[in-house]
Parts: sequence; structure tokens; C-alpha cells
Amino acid sequence: MSVSFGKCKSVLITGSSRGLGLQMVKNLAKSSDRPATIIATARNPTASMDLQELSKTYPGVHIVPLDVVSEHSVSSAMEEVRSIVGSEGLNCLINNAAINISTDINTVSVDAMMKTFQSNTVAPLFVTKAFLPLLQAAAAQSSGMGIHRAAVINMSSILGSIQSNWGDSATFKSYAYRTSKAALNMVTRCLAADLGSNGILCISLHPGWVKTDMGGPNADLTVEESVSNMLAVITNLTDKDHGGFKDYSGKDLPW
Amino acid sequence: MSVSFGKCKSVLITGSSRGLGLQMVKNLAKSSDRPATIIATARNPTASMDLQELSKTYPGVHIVPLDVVSEHSVSSAMEEVRSIVGSEGLNCLINNAAINISTDINTVSVDAMMKTFQSNTVAPLFVTKAFLPLLQAAAAQSSGMGIHRAAVINMSSILGSIQSNWGDSATFKSYAYRTSKAALNMVTRCLAADLGSNGILCISLHPGWVKTDMGGPNADLTVEESVSNMLAVITNLTDKDHGGFKDYSGKDLPW
Ligand SMILES: NC(=O)c1ccc[n+]([C@@H]2O[C@H](COP(=O)([O-])OP(=O)(O)OC[C@H]3O[C@@H](n4cnc5c(N)ncnc54)[C@H](OP(=O)(O)O)[C@@H]3O)[C@@H](O)[C@H]2O)c1
Ligand SMILES: NC(=O)c1ccc[n+]([C@@H]2O[C@H](COP(=O)([O-])OP(=O)(O)OC[C@H]3O[C@@H](n4cnc5c(N)ncnc54)[C@H](OP(=O)(O)O)[C@@H]3O)[C@@H](O)[C@H]2O)c1
Repeated sequence: MSVSFGKCKSVLITGSSRGLGLQMVKNLAKSSDRPATIIATARNPTASMDLQELSKTYPGVHIVPLDVVSEHSVSSAMEEVRSIVGSEGLNCLINNAAINISTDINTVSVDAMMKTFQSNTVAPLFVTKAFLPLLQAAAAQSSGMGIHRAAVINMSSILGSIQSNWGDSATFKSYAYRTSKAALNMVTRCLAADLGSNGILCISLHPGWVKTDMGGPNADLTVEESVSNMLAVITNLTDKDHGGFKDYSGKDLPW
Repeated sequence: MSVSFGKCKSVLITGSSRGLGLQMVKNLAKSSDRPATIIATARNPTASMDLQELSKTYPGVHIVPLDVVSEHSVSSAMEEVRSIVGSEGLNCLINNAAINISTDINTVSVDAMMKTFQSNTVAPLFVTKAFLPLLQAAAAQSSGMGIHRAAVINMSSILGSIQSNWGDSATFKSYAYRTSKAALNMVTRCLAADLGSNGILCISLHPGWVKTDMGGPNADLTVEESVSNMLAVITNLTDKDHGGFKDYSGKDLPW
């Protein structure tokens, strides 16, 4: 699959201080066929040297502060992004920021369940709602479905697959994270049903098990492997993929 | 399918002040082959005349106050139930209490998402955790899987099916309720993976669209139709059903 992100004029990524979010900004910024505008958001952007470095090195990389669980931060970020993208709107929103609090049946707490749901499920919904006018503005200027028009990519996880949580695949115990990602998949599906007629494509995407702070050192994939594959999947999305759940290799996953 | 609930010595139902919970208590209490101990819980039991009446009319119907979102109420209820069931433990826990706040893409609020998740997803998990010693006590006295031993029934909904939320089935818009029930299905699956080896059967059950305060007057089924069918499904559960998602007719539903 070829990565030709150039047909997408603007992309916004949440949680790009480190891990997969940072690597997506890096790969996009370095690519020859790239979005003119890359909006790298982070809740504390000054703390990420890597991100600061990228925005100095590559043109069109805008750093915007965005704490996805803060209503105030979300609306400030939206205003700032509106002034960056102007009437062309925003082509691609990648809801990547998330947390993972370790919770098995003995250690799970109400607080861990609620916090994780807020960051991983509720925040992507309300970030999408906030940026909807910009996605709609972009969608109004094109036809068909894909990142040339408008798309919402929710970073989910195979751990959010209810079907797969059985037998050997059930060995990773995490009540808070698993329920938040299953719920995020439902949010993807609700958004897909609501926004499809606006020409806004919505999917859930599983990055694979990746060596990041969250994935840990024993994971299968490097961030570079996961991100280059995911960007290829995202570039090639069409109406057939709308409302789906895919992994980094483009394979459909069960709900 | 025959309803022979007698092999189940004790059952506890949450949210039995009205609707499906109340009707379950009613049908069980009236049945000839019934659990000796029926624990009807409600957050405000004195407000339910129907429930008061039932406990006066039928022997073995115990009313226990239980607000499923209050940690304090859950632990007090568990102590009271422990003293009722004694060393025989609890055979069947039915997590029935739930709320439904109307939320489409325009009206959905962070507060509605969080409250619904707490009542419909987090509460069933923590009620189950609290009553686990009593379920384990019951499970230790028997073998096989089913309500003769120990079972957790989570009242879910077809609206929680991510797969089904598409096309015509997506016309009912409710971000908060749908995500909470998809997340509950993940909780069922996590509990099934953790508790199966203890001999505790766990499933998600969809009651059909039922004429209650929640289902409204245009629903397909009367409470009596839904409950008599569900009780038949619950009576006939075996190890093959463990970790599954069924409707009131016994049909398997997609996640
Ligand atoms: N790594 C894996 O194996 C794996 C597998 C499946 C799915 N995923 C998913 O892939 C996505 C990225 O994961 P990752 O491995 O890159 O995780 P990571 O290394 O832990 O990075 C998480 C990122 O999310 C940000 N974040 C968390 N809460 C935030 C908030 N309230 N506002 C803004 N940013 C916030 C963090 O910012 P700070 O630096 O400020 O903390 C950080 O940039 C997540 O959705 C994750 O669930 C990862
Ligand atoms: N009716 C349908 O068509 C339908 C379809 C699919 C699934 N379901 C599910 O079936 C179950 C029962 O629904 P229903 O139709 O009987 O609903 P209902 O008529 O609205 O009754 C809801 C019950 O839950 C109780 N409840 C709510 N929050 C509670 C809390 N914090 N603590 C204790 N009790 C609480 C209510 O108590 P109060 O009286 O104190 O408010 C009431 O007894 C729910 O899980 C629902 O999601 C229903």
C-alpha cells in the first residue's frame, strides 16, 4: 500500500507528545507526499522536546495545546485550529490520546473505571463533536469518502474486541482499559451512523502491540513499523471501510 | 423451555422497584418450583407499593435496600444478604438496575455519558465483586454450570451490540446508553474469563423491547412475556452459554 497523504490537506493528532502520536507526526512531516498542515496536539507540549524539535525542523507542523479531558482546553484548541485551517476545514482527526491503568479483578477500582472511560471513550466523542464544524467544512468541498475529504480515526485496541476476549486472548486482564475501548468502538459506530451522510468517514483502528510506554518493551512492533502501516491503511480508506474496525495491516477485526 | 427455578436456592435482583426487576420477583415468587430465597433489592424500597405487597404475600421474599452506585449501600446490602443466605451462599445474581438518559449527537453531555456508565457498567461490576464471596460459597457446594450452582446475569440490551448498530438498527440514537451496554458486555466477558474456573456462569441477557417506563408503551413485549421467557432462558443455562450474549428467546446475539 502506498502512503500518499498529500490528498489530505490537514490532519490533527491528539496525544502527540510521545509514543504512536509523536511517531505519526514524525512520519507525516518527513514524507514527500504529505499534508500541508499537521496539527500536533499535546496536553503539555513544552514538556516534549521531540515535538518541539519536529516543529522547528519541518514546515507546517503546528503545535496546539490540547488536554482531551478538559472542556475548556478542547474549545480553545478548536478556536486555534480554526484560525490555522481557515475555510478549508480539517480533513483528518486522529483521536490517539489514551491512558491505561493496570486493573485486574482484584485491583480494579471505581475511580480507575471512570477515569479511563473519560479519557479513552468520552474524550474522543467530545473532541470529535468540537471539531465537527471544521470536518464538515472540509467535507463540503469534496465528494466520495476518505482522507481527501474528511475522516475521524479512533485509536482503539484489539483489547476492546468483546468477541476476542476469550480463551488465550483473555489472558491480558484489564477491566478499565478493555471496557473503555469496547465503548470507544460503540462511539465509532454511533458517529459513523450519524456522520456518514455528511461525508465524514469514521473508523476504529488497532495499531498492533507496539513498543511504546504503554505497549512496553516486549511488544511485537516498533513504533515506526506500526505507524508506517497505519498511515498506509488510513490513506487508502474508502466508503467500504466506513464504520469498521481494522488493524494496522488493514485486516478487519471482530467487535 | 420449562421454568424450574427450584434448583436455584437463592436469587438476588437489583432494581426491583418496578419494570422488569419487579416482574422477575413477582413471577419467581408465584412459581410452584421456585427459589426458597428471593432477595428483591431497590434503592428506595419503601416507595414501591408493589414490592411491599409481594413480600407480604409470598414467603421467602426479602426486601433489601441497595443503591447500586453507592459503595456504602453495596457493602451494607452484602452484609444483610450474607446473614439471609448463610453458608449456602447466593446462587444467582441478576444485575438488572439501569438508567437511560436520552442522548443523541446534539444532546449528549459528558455528565450523561459518565452517569450512565457508572450505573449501567461500573455498578454491575462492583455489585458482582461485592457478592463474589457469596457466589463462591454457593459454587463450592455443587458442580457443573448453571443456576443450580452460581450465575451472574447482566441485563444488557441489543442496543449494546456494536455489530447491530448499523443501517435500520442504528435509528435509535443514544450515545450514553449504547456505550454503557457495549461496555457492560465487555464486563460480562471479563468476568466470564475470570470466574469460569470458580464455577460461576456469567452472561449478558437482552430482555427484548419491553413495555416498561424505560421501554415505553410502543414496545413489542409485555413485562410478563419478557420475564417468563427470560426466566426460562436463565433456568436452562449450561456451560455452553458461559460468556455469551442471548436474548429473551434464547437466541445468541452478536457483540
Ligand atoms: N502501544 C500499544 O501496544 C497499543 C496497543 C493498542 C492500542 N494502543 C492505543 O494507541 C494509542 C497511543 O498509544 P501509545 O502506545 O502511544 O501510548 P503512550 O505511549 O502511553 O502515549 C499516550 C499519549 O496519550 C497522551 N494523553 C493521555 N491522556 C491525555 C490527555 N488527557 N490529553 C492529551 N493527551 C493525553 C499522552 O500524553 P502525555 O505525554 O502528556 O502523558 C501521550 O502522548 C492509544 O489510544 C492506545 O490505547 C496502543
Ligand atoms: N424495557 C426495555 O425495552 C429494555 C430493553 C433492553 C434492555 N433493558 C434493560 O432491562 C433492565 C430493566 O429495565 P426496565 O425496562 O425494567 O427499566 P425501568 O422500568 O426504567 O426500571 C429501572 C429499574 O432500575 C432501578 N435503578 C436505576 N438506578 C438504580 C440504582 N442506582 N440503584 C438501584 N436501582 C436503580 C430503578 O429504580 P427506581 O425505581 O428507584 O428508579 C428501577 O427499578 C435494564 O438493565 C435495562 O437497561 C430494558
